Amino acid sequence: MRREIGEQGAAVAATLEEVRRQAGRARAAMSGRRRILFVARGSSDNAAIYGRYLVETQLGVPASLAAPSVATHYRARLDLSDTLVVSVSQSGRTEEIVEVQRWAAVHGAATVAISNDAESPLATEADVPLTTQAGTERAVPATKSYTSQLAALAGLAASLDGGESLWPLLDRAAAEVSRLEEGEAGVADAVDLLAGSDETLVTGRGLVFGTALEVALKLEETCLRPVRGLSYADLRHGPIAVVGPGLTAVVVAAQDGPMLGPIAELARDLAGRGAKVLAVGGDAVLAAAGACHVPGPDLPEPVAPLALVVPGQLIVESLARRLGLDPDSPRGLSKVTTTDPA
Amino acid sequence: MRREIGEQGAAVAATLEEVRRQAGRARAAMSGRRRILFVARGSSDNAAIYGRYLVETQLGVPASLAAPSVATHYRARLDLSDTLVVSVSQSGRTEEIVEVQRWAAVHGAATVAISNDAESPLATEADVPLTTQAGTERAVPATKSYTSQLAALAGLAASLDGGESLWPLLDRAAAEVSRLEEGEAGVADAVDLLAGSDETLVTGRGLVFGTALEVALKLEETCLRPVRGLSYADLRHGPIAVVGPGLTAVVVAAQDGPMLGPIAELARDLAGRGAKVLAVGGDAVLAAAGACHVPGPDLPEPVAPLALVVPGQLIVESLARRLGLDPDSPRGLSKVTTTDPA
Repeated sequence: MRREIGEQGAAVAATLEEVRRQAGRARAAMSGRRRILFVARGSSDNAAIYGRYLVETQLGVPASLAAPSVATHYRARLDLSDTLVVSVSQSGRTEEIVEVQRWAAVHGAATVAISNDAESPLATEADVPLTTQAGTERAVPATKSYTSQLAALAGLAASLDGGESLWPLLDRAAAEVSRLEEGEAGVADAVDLLAGSDETLVTGRGLVFGTALEVALKLEETCLRPVRGLSYADLRHGPIAVVGPGLTAVVVAAQDGPMLGPIAELARDLAGRGAKVLAVGGDAVLAAAGACHVPGPDLPEPVAPLALVVPGQLIVESLARRLGLDPDSPRGLSKVTTTDPA
Repeated sequence: MRREIGEQGAAVAATLEEVRRQAGRARAAMSGRRRILFVARGSSDNAAIYGRYLVETQLGVPASLAAPSVATHYRARLDLSDTLVVSVSQSGRTEEIVEVQRWAAVHGAATVAISNDAESPLATEADVPLTTQAGTERAVPATKSYTSQLAALAGLAASLDGGESLWPLLDRAAAEVSRLEEGEAGVADAVDLLAGSDETLVTGRGLVFGTALEVALKLEETCLRPVRGLSYADLRHGPIAVVGPGLTAVVVAAQDGPMLGPIAELARDLAGRGAKVLAVGGDAVLAAAGACHVPGPDLPEPVAPLALVVPGQLIVESLARRLGLDPDSPRGLSKVTTTDPA
């Protein structure tokens, strides 16, 4: 896992280049369509959440996430002739996702498949296969395949009408991934904090909400502890009532954007309730609100997620070792995931 | 809370009647539009998740849930001229939801507001206000306002093209709510199980996924314990690795439908990993898979959620008392919720 964290800058750069070569095909697939529907599970779903916010906020195209069972179990007949369906699966072989993509095509959608295997059924059956350039990922927890998915999603957005201005930001993002994968600042303190914590939640909002969910999922899968990922808003809307001493709250944020002020205020509120706050990314104000701070990328919010997850991965990998666990092969997980056992 | 649980059958029946009177207006608002976008937070969001599955599976209309910050913080310009926006808020005064509805109208959407107050800004500003007939709800945890929202959502679906066959099922659902609100079977055993549990999760899938999230939220808010609500699929996709003894898994299901087989298998799997399984609803097979079973409604899956939450509410109310807490007024919650503090 540690080595693959270090391969992400190169994987992101190569993926952006590959997607850019396919930009014309992606643009053609979207032509005449009004909305984008993402299909994914697990880490890929966390990537797709970023894709949804990016497409709605930067392109002004309505986007949403599919409920796969609507296709696979209820076999609903939806008119998707106005829709571009974007399926995301590292292996390209997760049966449920392949089935939803087939269903979408039958119901009129144009299809884009983001996978790490150009020979997979998901890729070969799609109108536009976008192949992430992560290479073989040996560790079970997704790292470089996840950041490559983010790169492919952002590259796809940059390929569509209104997204062109994202390209130069994405070149910067690849460089920031490379820089942060060597980052040690704050990681040891963060691991101390988390190792001594009874209960952990991770929160974020808007464009970085998917990052918060991904850090939560990685913490849980790799460190074998229950960890909750919650949006800022859902946390404020009720569960904040149960926050108190014993809880460590990981708060992730970009360095700018409309969410930064509110999330720093949330961090202060959580600290005021006795929680230990670990701030990842953000600015000096957020850093000051936390008991511990791990710096994030120097990137504007729309592309920050590509690199903001990297400090989170470093924390997870290091925490797993501290706890005497094997971060490369956590108990009970396999690489090609299955929703319904055969 | 206990008294309000007992007022739900009447509230659901009155709400269905009210929505049926507005069916023509709802149908007119949908005319020429191709999709439905739900806007909600908290318990109302759990209701909206049911609305989304119902609309997609029963009407074949693409539906999704809005990310409110796309409107309130990013001020995205989306073309919603093909969209019916359905906002759900008990008070009709949650500022974020009112703001998203205004944004949607500016961007071309027709608007339906489901609230419990016909004088609220959400109701008065909507093209079609649908007023739930829950009356004043005094306990902070939503019970009758939540089931009335489900009734309004289902009544709305029944009012639209292809939904007519839902009406007779909904009349049966109101009767089942009344029957179950007196139910005691299994509740004391369920409370014993939960009171002795270190960690709790609630899971469900498809049409009853929202029910699982609502039971999780109520357990957490009312009993002041962290409780996770997870979809069947997301649980299978990773976090199941951390399931073991010490965990109580509440598994909710309708008595029929394509999810029943897989969810019963999941219950057996969870029990095999050492978790204590509390089955709510389902059939005899699911009941046998659990250490404890609380019966659900005698209703087909599309309308089961209206009544399936009732046993969950009874468990929550009784558990709070067992833990020496006040179910009517949990610490740290207020009735009109605010996402961003002023």
